[in-house]
Amino acid sequence: MTRRSFWAWGNEDRQPTPADYDAMARRIHQRYGATLAPPKPPTDADLNLRPPRILPHPLVAEFCSTDDHDRAAHNYGRSFRDRIRGFNCDFPNPPDVIAYPSTEAELVTVLDWCSNSNIVAIPYGGGSTVVAGVEPPPANAVVTIDLTRLDQVLEIDDTSRAARIQAGVLGPALEAQLRPHGYTLRHFPQSFEFSSLGGWIATRSGGHYATNHTHIDDFVESVRMVTPSGVWESRRLPGSGAGPSPDRMIIGSEGILGVITEAWMRIQARPRFRASAGVVFDGMAAAAQGARLIAQAKQWPANLRMLDPAEAEDFAGLDGTQALLIVGFESAELPQGDNIRQAVAIARDAGGSIDEEAIVIADAAETSGSSAGRQGAVGSWRNSFINAPYERNATIGFGIVAETLETSITWERWPAMDEMVRSALQDALQRTCGGGRVSCRFTHVYPDGPAPYYTFEGLAKVGGELEAHAEIKQAASDAVMTAGGTITHHHAVGRSHRPWYDQQRPDPFADALRAVKRSLDPNGILNPGVLIDP
Amino acid sequence: MTRRSFWAWGNEDRQPTPADYDAMARRIHQRYGATLAPPKPPTDADLNLRPPRILPHPLVAEFCSTDDHDRAAHNYGRSFRDRIRGFNCDFPNPPDVIAYPSTEAELVTVLDWCSNSNIVAIPYGGGSTVVAGVEPPPANAVVTIDLTRLDQVLEIDDTSRAARIQAGVLGPALEAQLRPHGYTLRHFPQSFEFSSLGGWIATRSGGHYATNHTHIDDFVESVRMVTPSGVWESRRLPGSGAGPSPDRMIIGSEGILGVITEAWMRIQARPRFRASAGVVFDGMAAAAQGARLIAQAKQWPANLRMLDPAEAEDFAGLDGTQALLIVGFESAELPQGDNIRQAVAIARDAGGSIDEEAIVIADAAETSGSSAGRQGAVGSWRNSFINAPYERNATIGFGIVAETLETSITWERWPAMDEMVRSALQDALQRTCGGGRVSCRFTHVYPDGPAPYYTFEGLAKVGGELEAHAEIKQAASDAVMTAGGTITHHHAVGRSHRPWYDQQRPDPFADALRAVKRSLDPNGILNPGVLIDP
Repeated sequence: MTRRSFWAWGNEDRQPTPADYDAMARRIHQRYGATLAPPKPPTDADLNLRPPRILPHPLVAEFCSTDDHDRAAHNYGRSFRDRIRGFNCDFPNPPDVIAYPSTEAELVTVLDWCSNSNIVAIPYGGGSTVVAGVEPPPANAVVTIDLTRLDQVLEIDDTSRAARIQAGVLGPALEAQLRPHGYTLRHFPQSFEFSSLGGWIATRSGGHYATNHTHIDDFVESVRMVTPSGVWESRRLPGSGAGPSPDRMIIGSEGILGVITEAWMRIQARPRFRASAGVVFDGMAAAAQGARLIAQAKQWPANLRMLDPAEAEDFAGLDGTQALLIVGFESAELPQGDNIRQAVAIARDAGGSIDEEAIVIADAAETSGSSAGRQGAVGSWRNSFINAPYERNATIGFGIVAETLETSITWERWPAMDEMVRSALQDALQRTCGGGRVSCRFTHVYPDGPAPYYTFEGLAKVGGELEAHAEIKQAASDAVMTAGGTITHHHAVGRSHRPWYDQQRPDPFADALRAVKRSLDPNGILNPGVLIDP
Repeated sequence: MTRRSFWAWGNEDRQPTPADYDAMARRIHQRYGATLAPPKPPTDADLNLRPPRILPHPLVAEFCSTDDHDRAAHNYGRSFRDRIRGFNCDFPNPPDVIAYPSTEAELVTVLDWCSNSNIVAIPYGGGSTVVAGVEPPPANAVVTIDLTRLDQVLEIDDTSRAARIQAGVLGPALEAQLRPHGYTLRHFPQSFEFSSLGGWIATRSGGHYATNHTHIDDFVESVRMVTPSGVWESRRLPGSGAGPSPDRMIIGSEGILGVITEAWMRIQARPRFRASAGVVFDGMAAAAQGARLIAQAKQWPANLRMLDPAEAEDFAGLDGTQALLIVGFESAELPQGDNIRQAVAIARDAGGSIDEEAIVIADAAETSGSSAGRQGAVGSWRNSFINAPYERNATIGFGIVAETLETSITWERWPAMDEMVRSALQDALQRTCGGGRVSCRFTHVYPDGPAPYYTFEGLAKVGGELEAHAEIKQAASDAVMTAGGTITHHHAVGRSHRPWYDQQRPDPFADALRAVKRSLDPNGILNPGVLIDP
């Protein structure tokens, strides 16, 4: 079995090859006119970590590691900044111990050790955070608790379509365990390969569905969480009105209140009926209007993604002036032809165009063999989505500054926000990189507003990437705040988004959250610095 | 303008007439064989309240009342127990002062007065609570804050389909303000006439939609709440993943954390297309199966209500062995004929029967003139729903013990729960009333389980109603807990459900909620005894 890379997205066997670097050098030359030598990615021999400041307690030593590769691999998430630092072997403050509990009892023992000895404990799922959610804060000692050995689907309830699942399971292993039973969780964030159920819940992950049930929140039936003050477990209920939802206090708590160990999740029969369409619009405003009208008609398509002209060009081969609106329906039980035709009619009324034969309807096709939604412009975009994190690995070391940021906003303020964010990004790219590229898509769409997702890229000097990145990120995040958006729609807050999150959340809520943390984690050992200060 | 009754559901001009009492006496004779004289409802002259223990502070005196009728009318909600006590003029612990702030500034002044003087403050919307949510606890002094003067729709955002609405507005006034703009909130709990937006949010009210968006929770875009520690206001966002949702901490907080003053709510275009069907099944198990399969097909019908044979007989005239499954779709934009045909096909596959011509499809009919879903069995049931609270007024004083209780449970445990709850109810009715009637319907249906709603009735001795009621309620609630359900799906916890809620919620969550309350309401003045003890 291959190891995870300590700096890049994915496992070591999927790291950039010389051919990848050559292709990237050609792309950079084409786009920026620069001729650059391929970078040399780091190896274990380049690691020179501070020795662990603590040793594992004898009670937990058996399932703990102090190996350098392990500690480096768990030091950061996989944001642009993380990958640059990892590539540079810049690991000044690595975790001291990585614990791999295989049972909840082992986890409790680790937490007890940390709590009694005032050791910082960082819950770690797949490590795909892009907001420094797993990055050790300054502290005397840090244990990162890797939950990936808690990776089993424990129970499946066919009647209620729910499953009890351990929190450490990563996306592919989760789906592989559900598939033989005919089920799927259908939660496919871009981080799917290296993110865990517990991580999705702790970060309010955004998933497969572009409308209606956009976040993991809606698929949580009950949660079990170990806290320094005891076990928190909610009842399995399809719905409830008994006080504020206990689950909703955990969902989004990003590891500061406890460690999620398992959850009953609402699962689904695997879709057999699919229908999709890629509707082309003259420009983004018209496509956004189409998305709004479809969302407000409340058909709840599984897919409703708007690509601005830049993204539509890059990922779907359109002409650079046209925007693309991808609409898709799916069902395990019912044909979706009527739905797609109604949605296309709305899109056409809004100025969109699509040939009748480009509407793909696959009724009762086999899931695995189904090609609906996998063809043409729609299919091109889907492949890009899955491969993007790998492709970005190859940009690291060339001086490229590339990142994404996402938010949400109500429709009436969206055009102004878009203008503000784009101009903040372009101005900052100009200052730091002498220019660059900005594009936008909607990842999720609500009746009352879109969740826009911006991608930017520029070419800085090798060694100057982090400074340029910080300036661009600051400018864009400030614009999002000024425009009235959220600093994150589904990437979470972590440590990176704190300055803007602190402006966004109500002050009395921050006081309340601090009070909750003191109640559950009186020594403040759990993931300090995330979401709130003590 | 007519006043609210101090004991009954509704205004004084809708109280039982002599003819209503005669009809009720005949019904009782028919059902129980008893011949009873009509009761004599109380009047203001029968009130003999403890004098107020405090006087309004001069800063608030102008908008406060210490009138006996006012204080009696605000003493209780409108549960069975409340109405019996009100009818008996049993008001040993009335609130001392009723405050009617017209502005948020006035509300803040009242809260400051209460907080500085350690006076208990009880937020009060429409007063329709059935869980003693507004009933003063033992205290030195109590001010009930009636919010119904905060009754305006302040802003409407056509693009995002949202409105900023003051929390004290009651259902009909809210809809009347939205209607001229072509919108509706479409939140129609049975308490609609006398419940407020703020009350719906504070109690996680269950609304119009039987599937998908069952609770008010999903229609809240942002909330503004005044707390003793300052104003809590969240950003307007269509969706967010920034930490635990601040709104979800308020939603369901039942007045213990602050007073909700306004909210941005997601509103909707008024439906023009409707389709509905009443499908008949041999017995409840088959009808429940039909409901499950329709919910799991995720068409998200607006209406999906199962009536057991007893309810189907009482409200829809069926034969007493058949159960009724009501399915309805509605849309402002799209015809619903395909949807209803698909749902009926699923219901028929599950053993249901309906004549083809009984499927009502009203495409593009005017809202007001539309009769879809208002005819036959469906229409009978709808009228019963709206009038039920008034009809129950006439039972008070005859010795009738009648109440409803509601819960939710996952499908695989539902048959066992139903058996346990019914037998607990029947046994307790036997002990206390020598027998009685039990029936059940589903008010809301989820892919993973139903929200069953039980109605029971028996005849006790006049004067013995409360004792009988307490024994029946205890037995049924114990059964719900043992079966694994929630003590409330949408009636809230208040004070009445506390013993069972305390078993249900995770202990660490209760600690967390107490910590939140201490943070926001350090003197513990807000609605003490509800949800948690200090």
